[in-house]
Amino acid sequence: MELIIPFASQGNVPMYEQIYQHIKKEIRQGGLRAGDKLPSTRVLADHLKVSRSTTQMAYEQLLSEGYIEAVPCRGYFVSAIEELIQVNEPPMGRFVTEEETGEEGFVVDFSPRGIDLDSFPFNTWRKISKNILVDDNKALFLNGDPQGEYPLREAIRSYLHSARGVRCSADQIIVGAGNEYLLMLLSLILGQERVIAMENPTYKQAYRVFAGQGYSVVAIPMDKQGIQVDQLKRCQSPEPDLAYVMPSHQHPMGIVMPVKRRQELLAWAYEKEQRYLIEDDYDSEFRYKGKPIPALQGMDRGGKVIYIGTFSQSIAPAIRIGFLVLPQGLVQKYKTKAGFYASTVSRIDQNILYQFLTEGHYERHLNRMRSIYKSKHDCLMGELKAFEGAFNITGEHAGLHVLLAHRGGWTEEELEKRAARAGVKVYGLSQYFIHPEHNPFSSTVILGYAKLTEKEMRIGCGLLREAWGFGERKDPFPS
Amino acid sequence: MELIIPFASQGNVPMYEQIYQHIKKEIRQGGLRAGDKLPSTRVLADHLKVSRSTTQMAYEQLLSEGYIEAVPCRGYFVSAIEELIQVNEPPMGRFVTEEETGEEGFVVDFSPRGIDLDSFPFNTWRKISKNILVDDNKALFLNGDPQGEYPLREAIRSYLHSARGVRCSADQIIVGAGNEYLLMLLSLILGQERVIAMENPTYKQAYRVFAGQGYSVVAIPMDKQGIQVDQLKRCQSPEPDLAYVMPSHQHPMGIVMPVKRRQELLAWAYEKEQRYLIEDDYDSEFRYKGKPIPALQGMDRGGKVIYIGTFSQSIAPAIRIGFLVLPQGLVQKYKTKAGFYASTVSRIDQNILYQFLTEGHYERHLNRMRSIYKSKHDCLMGELKAFEGAFNITGEHAGLHVLLAHRGGWTEEELEKRAARAGVKVYGLSQYFIHPEHNPFSSTVILGYAKLTEKEMRIGCGLLREAWGFGERKDPFPS
Repeated sequence: MELIIPFASQGNVPMYEQIYQHIKKEIRQGGLRAGDKLPSTRVLADHLKVSRSTTQMAYEQLLSEGYIEAVPCRGYFVSAIEELIQVNEPPMGRFVTEEETGEEGFVVDFSPRGIDLDSFPFNTWRKISKNILVDDNKALFLNGDPQGEYPLREAIRSYLHSARGVRCSADQIIVGAGNEYLLMLLSLILGQERVIAMENPTYKQAYRVFAGQGYSVVAIPMDKQGIQVDQLKRCQSPEPDLAYVMPSHQHPMGIVMPVKRRQELLAWAYEKEQRYLIEDDYDSEFRYKGKPIPALQGMDRGGKVIYIGTFSQSIAPAIRIGFLVLPQGLVQKYKTKAGFYASTVSRIDQNILYQFLTEGHYERHLNRMRSIYKSKHDCLMGELKAFEGAFNITGEHAGLHVLLAHRGGWTEEELEKRAARAGVKVYGLSQYFIHPEHNPFSSTVILGYAKLTEKEMRIGCGLLREAWGFGERKDPFPS
Repeated sequence: MELIIPFASQGNVPMYEQIYQHIKKEIRQGGLRAGDKLPSTRVLADHLKVSRSTTQMAYEQLLSEGYIEAVPCRGYFVSAIEELIQVNEPPMGRFVTEEETGEEGFVVDFSPRGIDLDSFPFNTWRKISKNILVDDNKALFLNGDPQGEYPLREAIRSYLHSARGVRCSADQIIVGAGNEYLLMLLSLILGQERVIAMENPTYKQAYRVFAGQGYSVVAIPMDKQGIQVDQLKRCQSPEPDLAYVMPSHQHPMGIVMPVKRRQELLAWAYEKEQRYLIEDDYDSEFRYKGKPIPALQGMDRGGKVIYIGTFSQSIAPAIRIGFLVLPQGLVQKYKTKAGFYASTVSRIDQNILYQFLTEGHYERHLNRMRSIYKSKHDCLMGELKAFEGAFNITGEHAGLHVLLAHRGGWTEEELEKRAARAGVKVYGLSQYFIHPEHNPFSSTVILGYAKLTEKEMRIGCGLLREAWGFGERKDPFPS
């Protein structure tokens, strides 16, 4: 047989590839059939006026992909291939342009998410990065410790000890790319058949992770001291063996769990061997009155508290670095069940954070941010003075949002809708409930202020005052 | 009652904190008991000769932590706290120094892991980082797209299309921090009650992830064309609905799956709706003979191939960036079940990689590495010429290791042990088997060369030649 190969000798495609492509196409389209003998590489080379190594390379490629077979002493034959391949190439997948995630069309958006980035120490971060990426640091590009680099874990330990009263050694710390990843890892350590109690309302991302891992989630109501431990104790079927709590500053309620409640919670955990408390200490850094509330972990003497923290809130969301502090008793379990997972944070980023922590930048940054957020908080609270007749305001003095409960009993939808009509976005509390229909605070909305300027807050509050027409109990939908 | 507060007015601890600490300690140690009335803030301030705001701050902290309670018109009282707290502070957790992970005491270590970092384009990487960390790029520090930044996904799509024949749109790509994380995410998308078929031997990390997620893993033997699809079809209880394969270059066997076997595999997947193939294309970049083998994904017309790739192997392990390419039919499932997981890769790192890809650095780097690894490969193969009488050598022309099967039938333990005595580390094939006892290649060891210099390879092979005394079938343990 003869092969007519359409040449394109001036193109960029090497000759051997053109030969390979042509024969492959012939086989796929049926021009060459199973069992057909191909010319020898020498004959084909002579015929095409190319070197023999060129035809050899083409045949070798066809051999290695299985299109042809070599039979010793006889030559090359087309393989038997069931023609599953459709020759007509389908069009490329369509491009989906990303949807804008920001809220459009609002004059002021009191979003409870996000942080104030204007004060991010950009120069420091850049300088550290630059100094780290030097030639003799090449080892940084190799695989590191799955748990996170030891010096970084040691720096985190030291920070947690002095700032949060957390007691641990660096071998109890696991560094990972963000809260959700770490919770996923934790669920591997704890095993899949778990029943977890969560404060209601709670941090919904954590809820989604646990539910997604197949955990049974039991929503426990809160009172003014936090999760109701007596209700937790009463849960029988299913009986929770984990409880996820935010004792230093509950999200979104802003409740600080008092010592007595903490002790009740610890006592519950001490009752049975398989029980653990997961303490999410997500934003304890931002407290504008008094000292930070010490972590529950520091009170635990039974190895029952799993502590989880993050630098996403305190430095920047894009710094995908968080950490777990396991009780000693779970460290070996981690090593067996998840110790083979390579770290999700690059060594370079770990090193940058390490220097940021140990050179005092983090402390300075926190102090600065605390003071910036305090100013914003004070400004907002000043503006909200006028709201006190119509609203009960809570959750102040800490974190990055406050809660407004309408005394007149308007629903959160009414509050949101009226605000939206005036160009202001506020956030109903229901979205934080595991079962939004169980929300007993049906008249509460959240106002976040981290990203807003003082001017924006003043404008926003002015618009809200009009939109919500204080004092009188108006018909929510006047005709 | 009177409070005697030991002053340390010259220390760094603010007065209010000393007062707070003292009262807290008194309560915890029983000096103050539940129901005890505290002096008013005014009385205490007078007594201690401090300002009233100082005592107020101390009391507020005690209040917010729940140690004391305020009774309107009556004053402050110590709360009832069950003394769970042990007052004796336990010693800090001991420090565990990290164990060295490298192999000690070997003259030459033919490790199949690791890459050659000497050729990493450090300057380029640093330059890109520096240019990215400029002030007007602050938005990089905000939260990004959970799926990965769109431009990066588009750059990955374009690379995969031209270099690997993968057909997809950027909305099918999920960027994540490494293979293991992405497989964990994938198991969330696919659901927990799955039965997965794996080539045996295989990439053990993937096996550990699936087993850890509670998947039933079925090990399917291989022949010279890869996974035996007829065996896969015969599996009934449990019946696999997923198959994890490395068709372009099987790890560790180095087999390239021919077209016919690929089609059989696709046909198996097409038979039932819930079936999918997971194609791990971990090191297809390094092929020293002919063109790269196109990805299986490009042959699939039924939306059955889930493609997974990584930059850890081709750029550097510490670049914790890999990606999944989902079939269109699974994209919505991802969004519902795992779309809320924030990206595990920082936007900064995504941006650096994006520039590295789109400015042509990646292509240059790959070409350079391919040529460096080819030289090493050729050198090793030259050295191994002398081994051909005693060993059957396979897995060459691609990847970063070769396989040596002893014709005389020595066990891999014997081969490893004799090599170790001569100061050389080689790696038995058994460790790649899901059930090492089922390894039919009991005389095979692996020699990796990515990290070795040509000189080291020559020394290593010389030592091995002596250690393994070729040709004759010696008593493996001479007295």
